[in-house]
Amino acid sequence: MKKSLGAKTIILPTPVWVIGTYGNAGKPNAMTAAWSGVCCSKPPCVYVSLREATLTHKNIKEHQAYTISVPSERHIKEADYFGLVSGERENKFTKTGLTPVKSNLVDAPYVDEFPLVLECRLLKAIELGLHTQFVGEIVDVKADEDVLSDEGYPDILKVKPAVYSPGTREYHGIGKFLAKGFEIGSNLKG
Amino acid sequence: MKKSLGAKTIILPTPVWVIGTYGNAGKPNAMTAAWSGVCCSKPPCVYVSLREATLTHKNIKEHQAYTISVPSERHIKEADYFGLVSGERENKFTKTGLTPVKSNLVDAPYVDEFPLVLECRLLKAIELGLHTQFVGEIVDVKADEDVLSDEGYPDILKVKPAVYSPGTREYHGIGKFLAKGFEIGSNLKG
Repeated sequence: MKKSLGAKTIILPTPVWVIGTYGNAGKPNAMTAAWSGVCCSKPPCVYVSLREATLTHKNIKEHQAYTISVPSERHIKEADYFGLVSGERENKFTKTGLTPVKSNLVDAPYVDEFPLVLECRLLKAIELGLHTQFVGEIVDVKADEDVLSDEGYPDILKVKPAVYSPGTREYHGIGKFLAKGFEIGSNLKG
Repeated sequence: MKKSLGAKTIILPTPVWVIGTYGNAGKPNAMTAAWSGVCCSKPPCVYVSLREATLTHKNIKEHQAYTISVPSERHIKEADYFGLVSGERENKFTKTGLTPVKSNLVDAPYVDEFPLVLECRLLKAIELGLHTQFVGEIVDVKADEDVLSDEGYPDILKVKPAVYSPGTREYHGIGKFLAKGFEIGSNLKG
């Protein structure tokens, strides 16, 4: 018998991704979001959901672009800070000492020290209530060479992304290898 | 200098969540999705993005509802199988021996053996390209009592959800506690 917890945004796990945008006079900003994910394969799209009160919401509307930088667990302190403070009040790159790099494809900066980056062109802004969902077309994925697998994909045990747990408000790292996808379940088939 | 990987849906981590729906004659179906996440806090909403070719896409359109059941790592084999086979061809609950439970709130079944469940009423279906994004309002969250923290929230180290790595196509478990959210970053403030 399961216990009812009510109508809440409680699900596990959620990502810890940093949204990079430009503001007035080209001021770079970074904000951490957990309400984010992949939402289409063709065209390749992600989204981030943001409150209208945030600077990032305004910046995306004005520049029609954003990046997602995936922090490694060693930068969890900086990632948490990016979600705590508004870019209206502090220059978050200056404060953390992290480096904004201008994307060569979209009008947004990414975090150089984070190993995996997506550059996104705004496709749609969907009003859902408190949050606007910004669907972005992925125009490129960039990664540090030292986090790539032999096949050229980002290796999760090298990227070491964090996950966030709404409710308990905790960050955790990535754990042990469990199985190969599209493989472990195949002997249940047919 | 980061290496360009191209315009691909490669980001880390993505969730491993099982979407429960009813089909013709009340036949329960389960499908695993990684293109899913939280997209609004008020009303509380999640989404799942699905190809039109899937049975789950058809079922959600017809029943205007779905559930998300979060498998523990011990059910990774069943979760992988749910993503490998169409419910048009096999009864996936019969095949796995897992138990569909009819939600008391929406017209969709969840997986009884999975510790955390969201019941969702379809709010919007947004065509993005290959995938339709089904935004669902969370009408309840249900969890097994033995995975709850002292404060009554699902504890990620008890739920033991998996994460999926697109590209390398691997499942991993949850790793060590890193930090408290909205706390570890606060000494960078001001």
